Amino acid sequence: MRKSVADKARRLIQTTTSARSIYSNSVSRRLSPHPRFPLSPPHSYAACSNPSPLSQFAIRLLTSLPSPSSDSMAPPSSSLTLESLNPKVLKCEYAVRGEIVTLAQQLQQELQENPGSHPFDEILYCNIGNPQSLGQQPITFFREVLALCDHPAILDKSETQGLFSADAIERAWQILDQIPGRATGAYSHSQGIKGLRDTIAAGIEARDGFPADPNDIFLTDGASPAVHMMMQLLTRSEEDGILCPIPQYPLYSASIALHGGTLVPYYLNEATGWGLEIPELKKQLEAAKSKGITVRSLVVINPGNPTGQVLAEENQREIVEFCKKEGLVLLADEVYQENIYAPDKEFHSFKKISRTMGYGDKDISLVSFQSVSKGYYGECGKRGGYMEVTGFSPEIREQIYKVASVNLCSNISGQILASLVMSPPKVGDESYESYSAEKDGILSSLARRAKALEDAFNSLEGITCNKAEGAMYLFPSIHLPQKAIKAAEAAKTAPDAFYCHRLLNATGIVVVPGSGFGQVPGTWHFRCTILPQEDKIPAIVSRLTDFHKGFMDEFRD
Amino acid sequence: MRKSVADKARRLIQTTTSARSIYSNSVSRRLSPHPRFPLSPPHSYAACSNPSPLSQFAIRLLTSLPSPSSDSMAPPSSSLTLESLNPKVLKCEYAVRGEIVTLAQQLQQELQENPGSHPFDEILYCNIGNPQSLGQQPITFFREVLALCDHPAILDKSETQGLFSADAIERAWQILDQIPGRATGAYSHSQGIKGLRDTIAAGIEARDGFPADPNDIFLTDGASPAVHMMMQLLTRSEEDGILCPIPQYPLYSASIALHGGTLVPYYLNEATGWGLEIPELKKQLEAAKSKGITVRSLVVINPGNPTGQVLAEENQREIVEFCKKEGLVLLADEVYQENIYAPDKEFHSFKKISRTMGYGDKDISLVSFQSVSKGYYGECGKRGGYMEVTGFSPEIREQIYKVASVNLCSNISGQILASLVMSPPKVGDESYESYSAEKDGILSSLARRAKALEDAFNSLEGITCNKAEGAMYLFPSIHLPQKAIKAAEAAKTAPDAFYCHRLLNATGIVVVPGSGFGQVPGTWHFRCTILPQEDKIPAIVSRLTDFHKGFMDEFRD
Repeated sequence: MRKSVADKARRLIQTTTSARSIYSNSVSRRLSPHPRFPLSPPHSYAACSNPSPLSQFAIRLLTSLPSPSSDSMAPPSSSLTLESLNPKVLKCEYAVRGEIVTLAQQLQQELQENPGSHPFDEILYCNIGNPQSLGQQPITFFREVLALCDHPAILDKSETQGLFSADAIERAWQILDQIPGRATGAYSHSQGIKGLRDTIAAGIEARDGFPADPNDIFLTDGASPAVHMMMQLLTRSEEDGILCPIPQYPLYSASIALHGGTLVPYYLNEATGWGLEIPELKKQLEAAKSKGITVRSLVVINPGNPTGQVLAEENQREIVEFCKKEGLVLLADEVYQENIYAPDKEFHSFKKISRTMGYGDKDISLVSFQSVSKGYYGECGKRGGYMEVTGFSPEIREQIYKVASVNLCSNISGQILASLVMSPPKVGDESYESYSAEKDGILSSLARRAKALEDAFNSLEGITCNKAEGAMYLFPSIHLPQKAIKAAEAAKTAPDAFYCHRLLNATGIVVVPGSGFGQVPGTWHFRCTILPQEDKIPAIVSRLTDFHKGFMDEFRD
Repeated sequence: MRKSVADKARRLIQTTTSARSIYSNSVSRRLSPHPRFPLSPPHSYAACSNPSPLSQFAIRLLTSLPSPSSDSMAPPSSSLTLESLNPKVLKCEYAVRGEIVTLAQQLQQELQENPGSHPFDEILYCNIGNPQSLGQQPITFFREVLALCDHPAILDKSETQGLFSADAIERAWQILDQIPGRATGAYSHSQGIKGLRDTIAAGIEARDGFPADPNDIFLTDGASPAVHMMMQLLTRSEEDGILCPIPQYPLYSASIALHGGTLVPYYLNEATGWGLEIPELKKQLEAAKSKGITVRSLVVINPGNPTGQVLAEENQREIVEFCKKEGLVLLADEVYQENIYAPDKEFHSFKKISRTMGYGDKDISLVSFQSVSKGYYGECGKRGGYMEVTGFSPEIREQIYKVASVNLCSNISGQILASLVMSPPKVGDESYESYSAEKDGILSSLARRAKALEDAFNSLEGITCNKAEGAMYLFPSIHLPQKAIKAAEAAKTAPDAFYCHRLLNATGIVVVPGSGFGQVPGTWHFRCTILPQEDKIPAIVSRLTDFHKGFMDEFRD
């Protein structure tokens, strides 16, 4: 099937070239696979009668559009209705937990209540980067330290020596000593516990070879609140734009919608392995400017989500240069920095790249997001993360601090874990060997799973799939027959959503339609995580293959 | 000093009556103690040249108003400046961690670097409800369960029996069994783990005697994100208003400002122990309507913050009736539900009250906020909490779910803790006795501390202080001499902030000026927590008394 890549590339270039008039209504066309159900652009209100594909399911469930006191479940007469809801909320979409997941949860319940009611016996959630939900085990050392910090009373009990590694006990003491009053149950400094920020800054220095300042670190409950905070600071009105990759992680479109700004899309080039091309950035920036949009910032996700590419150093330098020249705040989503699978690829932080170029705080405003949810640790439920904020004036820093203060602080376990992932056991520590074995086992298995799924997708008729060089996802392109597209239209759904639904109903495999991430109009994709445990991959591949063959047999033109 | 209460009451009533023209600019006057430094109203942009009292400190530090590239610390030329920042962010204020805390942190550092440099040897943080930072110990049972859930690998080790109570081990198993795949490191359902929501719903039922639905529970990282979520849903523009008590907890004014709505103030009556009076609600609602404001919601904080009053049942019924009649969403901040000190007072949730009145989902939209940060547990650093959302239509519920989904889920330790505080050990459980002793010890000590500080304040010249019936704060009124007010004016600060600064500099005691919470114009207050450990109270009282006498001697008219 590899030969179809060239065809695909030609089609992509054609489509991209022919659809250059963007913004206002046309942004929704570009982001949306289907004109009847556009993914609502963040800067114009979506009419209730024109729902996005991701809210169709809910609307179908309700059978008619809501109006106050129209049915027996009606709320109090003057209360909150869809008409009186903040329209920014109505516009916001988050496909990763959208319609398809609601349906999957429903099927799961049906399976529980009535085993054998579907042609599969479990739901395989490949919709979300949630490794431990699919059986990945936590890193023992990290959990030991967290448990000891949660219940420090056991630290000097003799039984504890038998249950916990010596370096975990030592690390817990170190961390407790960094917390004023050893109070792990107290609100911390609004940016996070100073000692933990020192540790994180040291970890960044060790990673990059350039200084990091603990006062630049803001600890957050995962990366999402940090992204929201920056969008909140940057967005005054729909005239403010944020350059975002398409496809993108839908947190960005959701956050821009919630804050009332404009998503200015730049397209990654699927034909060059989801390349980030500077001419495309320039073109989209100019187009936005000509529409009166003030572009404030550029979002780069590296390694890519949903695309899995790892940017080359030279490319990163061009991006830094572009942001510097255009005065854009560079928002660098670097949460997959530990997830690199291609042997010839390496992660470089944008801070390191910009410092290597001789650019300091006065040259470029840069925010790097990191999370404990990804990497080899995959501690999604702990909600830990940080942003490193450099190149802002003291008065802006004061404002960021103020906004952080309103929510008091992020959770302390997440803060501790963020310090641990940036400072794991070292050679010579008691836990080092077991820690390394756990880490390497997870990362090498992820690399094998990525390859197995990539190969499986590429063996299927009409599907082409770029390599996952990093991150946790594949984003295959699927060439859907006209007959399938017509059937989707008849079912009032987008063609990629139609395919994903059929896949779920036939196999129990949950993937997210490409329309939730954005894609070149007329192309169809889906995002599939590489996270199912290795022993399940053969069954997944076989179920996928059988389903796809049947689907193509049904709809082949 | 008690005789001055009547004088004070007369003054309050006079001032309140004479200052009834509200909204637009006048809101800022009503919320602000000082015309030169108004607390910015959320619905009109604050000019940079007209800073609020809470940002003065920062601005004084910077010595001049910022302009792009105006100094050597300037950011990149086209980057984010105060002028290009989202003005809603600029407007937002959060006094609890404002200027006075920045100064306190600076003094603390000076004390560390140069012991003896100030007339006190430690900073006493009475600015924030953060019990464990002042030495309150966590409840052992809760921490045991959290530690075991963090590191389940030790659950069946023999040493564990010696370190943990049997019921903590049993509870940890129960909780793990409620988590799909026992994966405490996975993202949960967007509303929180279903089994934990079942436990919380059962706890609410036991508390209220009315059914609670786990599907109405949204677990959140503390109560703050839940409040933000509701403000986000309710606020379309500055024409949407939220009725908030004055004085209020500044999360509300901050959140309304960040979401671009209008705070519609209603005044609590200090003369009747911070009474919430329906005629005042009606008057303010009508005044808002006449200004074109659509009032969406009423915020009630019960027990009160910063005021400490516990509402009477009859009063709560009137409030429910008012919301029902006016179609307002009742936002009930019930995070201090376990903090009741007055023997004749009892906490009743607004849900219980409305159900007792025969009102169900169809009659009133009601959101109750709860947090693990308060109560006798005081686990601020864990960031656990929930909101119970009742009386909304399915389509609005769908929208709330969607917004919750964008941030994936709240932290699992916080979720577990929220289930524990709503379902603590019961009679017969191994931990019950020690748990009860810890709980009762904390609550009875808080009651004694509240009384001691209340008495101390009331013994001071010009200070009157209502009883803390509940919550964690006292909000004394201070009658400042004209000479002090003039001195504050000369120092370009609000009189209450002037007093609080002098107090901090003289004693190391950190309290928050009343202007951060709102107060009747011409009156001055400060908020002081009742949280310092009991053995420190005599020294605090003595330092307060000495300072106050000196202050009055210096400024008495």
